[in-house]
Amino acid sequence: MSIAMPVPNAETLAKRERIARALRAIVPGEGVIDAPEALRPWESDGLTAYRQPPLLVVLPETTAQVSAVLKWCHAEGVKVVPRGAGTSLSGGALPLADAVLLGLGKFKRVLDVDYEDRVAVVQPGVTNLAITQAVEGRGFYYAPDPSSQIACTIGGNVAENSGGVHCLKYGLTTNNVLGAEVVLMDGEIVRLGGRHLDSGGLDLLGVVVGSEGLLGVVTEVTVRILPRPETARAVLVGFPDAEQAGACVAQVIAEGIIPAGMEMMDRPAIHAAEAFVNVGYPLDVGALLIVEVDGPAAECDFLIGEIARIGNANGAVTSRVSDGEAERMAFWAGRKAAFPAVGRISPDYLCMDGTIPRRRLPDVLRRMEELSEEYGLRVANVFHAGDGNLHPLILYDANVPGELDKAEAFGADILRLCVSVGGVLTGEHGVGIEKRDLMPEMFSDADLKQQQRVKCAFDPELLLNPGKVFPVLHRCAELGQMHVHHGALPHPELPRF
Amino acid sequence: MSIAMPVPNAETLAKRERIARALRAIVPGEGVIDAPEALRPWESDGLTAYRQPPLLVVLPETTAQVSAVLKWCHAEGVKVVPRGAGTSLSGGALPLADAVLLGLGKFKRVLDVDYEDRVAVVQPGVTNLAITQAVEGRGFYYAPDPSSQIACTIGGNVAENSGGVHCLKYGLTTNNVLGAEVVLMDGEIVRLGGRHLDSGGLDLLGVVVGSEGLLGVVTEVTVRILPRPETARAVLVGFPDAEQAGACVAQVIAEGIIPAGMEMMDRPAIHAAEAFVNVGYPLDVGALLIVEVDGPAAECDFLIGEIARIGNANGAVTSRVSDGEAERMAFWAGRKAAFPAVGRISPDYLCMDGTIPRRRLPDVLRRMEELSEEYGLRVANVFHAGDGNLHPLILYDANVPGELDKAEAFGADILRLCVSVGGVLTGEHGVGIEKRDLMPEMFSDADLKQQQRVKCAFDPELLLNPGKVFPVLHRCAELGQMHVHHGALPHPELPRF
Repeated sequence: MSIAMPVPNAETLAKRERIARALRAIVPGEGVIDAPEALRPWESDGLTAYRQPPLLVVLPETTAQVSAVLKWCHAEGVKVVPRGAGTSLSGGALPLADAVLLGLGKFKRVLDVDYEDRVAVVQPGVTNLAITQAVEGRGFYYAPDPSSQIACTIGGNVAENSGGVHCLKYGLTTNNVLGAEVVLMDGEIVRLGGRHLDSGGLDLLGVVVGSEGLLGVVTEVTVRILPRPETARAVLVGFPDAEQAGACVAQVIAEGIIPAGMEMMDRPAIHAAEAFVNVGYPLDVGALLIVEVDGPAAECDFLIGEIARIGNANGAVTSRVSDGEAERMAFWAGRKAAFPAVGRISPDYLCMDGTIPRRRLPDVLRRMEELSEEYGLRVANVFHAGDGNLHPLILYDANVPGELDKAEAFGADILRLCVSVGGVLTGEHGVGIEKRDLMPEMFSDADLKQQQRVKCAFDPELLLNPGKVFPVLHRCAELGQMHVHHGALPHPELPRF
Repeated sequence: MSIAMPVPNAETLAKRERIARALRAIVPGEGVIDAPEALRPWESDGLTAYRQPPLLVVLPETTAQVSAVLKWCHAEGVKVVPRGAGTSLSGGALPLADAVLLGLGKFKRVLDVDYEDRVAVVQPGVTNLAITQAVEGRGFYYAPDPSSQIACTIGGNVAENSGGVHCLKYGLTTNNVLGAEVVLMDGEIVRLGGRHLDSGGLDLLGVVVGSEGLLGVVTEVTVRILPRPETARAVLVGFPDAEQAGACVAQVIAEGIIPAGMEMMDRPAIHAAEAFVNVGYPLDVGALLIVEVDGPAAECDFLIGEIARIGNANGAVTSRVSDGEAERMAFWAGRKAAFPAVGRISPDYLCMDGTIPRRRLPDVLRRMEELSEEYGLRVANVFHAGDGNLHPLILYDANVPGELDKAEAFGADILRLCVSVGGVLTGEHGVGIEKRDLMPEMFSDADLKQQQRVKCAFDPELLLNPGKVFPVLHRCAELGQMHVHHGALPHPELPRF
C-alpha cells in the first residue's frame, strides 16, 4: 500500500539541514540520514497503524558520539527519540516530525562474557537472541525471550522491560539486568549497577529499566546469563473451556510450582496456530495450556506428575508430554507463531497487553467475550497465563471504515477491565503512545506527577521521547521543583559515642 | 554505661515545644514524645557507636496522620527521620538533633492475605517474622529473612532493601515487594505497583525500595508470599581453607545450582558459634559452608549429590547432611547466632557489609587477612557466600583509646577492597551514615549528582532523613533543575495511518 509522504515546509527543511550539518561533525560518513526517501524505512515501529517520518536519523557508533549528539541537541533544544530495532508494539520508538531519531543499530558488539560470575556485557544493539548465541557454546543462555527475540535488541528490551514465555520463572528484563551505562540528555555519562546484586545509594537502574527512552540512552548493558537447565519438557493440557484452564493455572501457582512457562491459548488462537504450523494441537478443546518445566530430570518428572494431577482436578480432557527436544520445540513453535497465524485469518489485528491478578482470569475472559459481541469484533487470546499477562488479539479490517476505531475502543475497554480487577495497563509491551491516554485509568494525578518529577530529574527540558507514556507532559517548573537556595547543605557532625 | 545527656539550648527547647504542640493537634494522646528522658530510648539504632536524641518523636497511627505530619513539617521546613524498629546497622534511622523522628511502630496490622494471588498487604510496622506467622497456618511464608527478623519491620526492610540467608534463591526485599503506599514529604499520598508484575510508567517502586527513608514514608506494603517448599535439607561442608570453600561456591553457582542458601564461616566464626550454641560444627576445618536446598524431595536428593560432588572436587574434608528438621534448624542456629557469638569473644565488634563478584572471594579473603595483621585487629568472617555478600566482623575494644578509630579505618579499607575488585559498598545493610563518606569510592560525581536529582524529585527541600547516604547534599537548585517555562506541553497529533 502506498502512502503520500508528508511534505515538510521550508522551516522544517532548514532545521533539518542545520541539524544534519552539526551531527555530521560528530558522526561522520553514513551515520546521518536526512534524504526524505531514506527516512521512509524509519517511519514506523511495531505499532504499524501509526507512521511518522523523523526529522532525521543519526546512527552513532560510540558512547562518546552518543554523548556529543545529546549534548548538542540539549544545547539547541532539539528533541530526540531513541530507537533499538523498532519492534515496539506500543509505539515507543515512533518518530516525531520535529525530533532526531537516534538509532543504536551500530552498537552490535558483545564486549565481555564472564562464565564464573555469569554475566555478559553487551552493547545495546545486540539482539536478544544474539546474547544467547554468544554464550550457548558454553551451555549458557539469556533468559527473557520476547517473541520478537530474533530482531529486538537488548537496548529496546531494557527500555520496555520486555518479557517472554520464560519470564514466569526467570523474571522480566529488570530481573536479568545487573548494570548499564546511560547517557543523559545533557551528554553526561553515568554507570548504574554493575556485576553485583545491590548497588548502594538509590536504585536508578530499576527506574531506567522500563522507562521507554524517556530518561536516557543506554549504551552498554550487563546482563545475567544462566546455564541451560539439564532437562526441559513441555506438556499440552486441554480443557473444555478457558475458565477451567484458568483455574488450573491458579492452582498450579498456589501450590508453589513455578513452571518455566505456562501459556494459554483459546479456541480461535489454537485453530489459527494449528492451521499455520501444524504441530498437533488438540482442536476439540476450548482452551489449551502449554506448561514447560525445566531443571534436573528428577525434578521435571515430579513436576509433570503434579501438573497432570492438578490438570485432572480442574477438568482437563487431553494431556500430552513432549517426547524429546524436537517435539518440545514444536509445541512452542505453535505458540510463538500465534500472532502471524492470527494474521492469516484476519486482514488486521490489534495486539493488546494487560496484566491481571491470576485468580481473575475466568471473570476477565467471560467479560471479554461479552465485549467481543458488543463490538462485533472477534478476539483471539494468547497469553502468559502464569503471570496473568493477557495478549488479546482483536481482529478487524482496516479497509472497513471505522473498524480500526472500533478495535481501538474495544482494546481500551479491555485495558480498563484489567485495571478494574486490580491489574495493570501493560505487561511487557510498554505504554508508548498506545496506552498513554489510558494512564489516568490507573494512576491518580499525584501518582503521575510524581512519575514526571522523576522524568524531570533526568531530562528537565523534556527533550527525550516526548509525547510517549505521560498523558499530560507538565513543564518541570510546574511540578514544584523551583528553589532559591544555593550551595551544598553542611552535614551535622556525626554523633559518635 | 551511663552517658551525659546533651543539654538543649533555649532555642531548641522553644522549637521542640512549638512542634510538639502542632503535632499533638494531629496525633492525639501518647503519640507525641518530647520529654527529654523519654527521648533516650530513641537515640540509637543498630549502629550503636552513634547516639543522638531526636528533637521529638511522633508515632502516628494512620496514613492520614502521617500525611498531615509531613505536610506540616514541609510547610514549616522541619526535618523528618522515619524509623521502623531501629535495627539498621548503618545508622539509617539515627535521629538528628533538629529533626522529628517519625516512628511507624503503631502500623502493626496485617490488612489482607490472598492465597490464590499469593500476596499479603501489611502495614509497615509489622515485623518481618510476623508476616510469615500470619500465613504459615496455610503453609506459606515471606522469603527474605534478615537475622534481625524477630524485631525488624517490613517498612525498615523496604527502606534498606534487606536480605537474609535465603535471598540467594528468593531475592532481596526488592524482589519480593509488589506494591507500596508512600507519603511524600509534602503530604501527598501515592500508590506504587500493586498485586501484579509490571507497573506501567516509571518504576518508582524500585527506586523507593532501598532508598533509606530519603524519598518518602511507606505506610502500606504489598508483599509476595510463597508456599513452604515440600522439603528442605542443609549440608555442612568443611574445607581446609577459605580459598577452597570459595572455589566450591563459585563452581556450584557456575554449574547452575541455586541453593536456597549458601553461607560461609571462617575458623574464628566457626569456633565462636560452636562455643556459643554447640550444634556440632567441625572444629578442625578452616572454612565451613552451610548449603541449603529446598523443593520436592527428589530435587533435594539430586542437588545434595551434586553439591557433594562439587565439594569433593574442591577439597572438602567433611560433609554432613541434616537428618530431619531439628538438625537442619540446629545447623542454622549456629549461623544465625554468629554475631552474638562473636560478641562473647570480644568486648566490641563492627559488622561490615560489602559485596564482591563471587570468583574474587579467595583474593579478597587473603587480602583481608593481611589487613587484619596490619591493623592488629582480629576479624571473623560470616557471609552470604552464594551472592558474594561479605560480613566481616572486626573485633575491637572500645575501652582501648583509639581502637574504634582503628576498627573503622580497617572497615573502610575492606569496603574499598570490595569496590576495587568490581564489587559494591553494601549488600543489605544500606549506606546510612556508616558508608556515606565512602560513596565517592564507588560513584563518580556525575553518578552521585544524578542520584540526588532523583532525591530532589521526591523531596526538593531535602527535609527527609538528611545527612544519610549522600556524602554531599547539594541544594536541588544546584543540580540544573531550574526552569522558566510554565504550563503543560501539548502533545502532537498522533500520526495514525
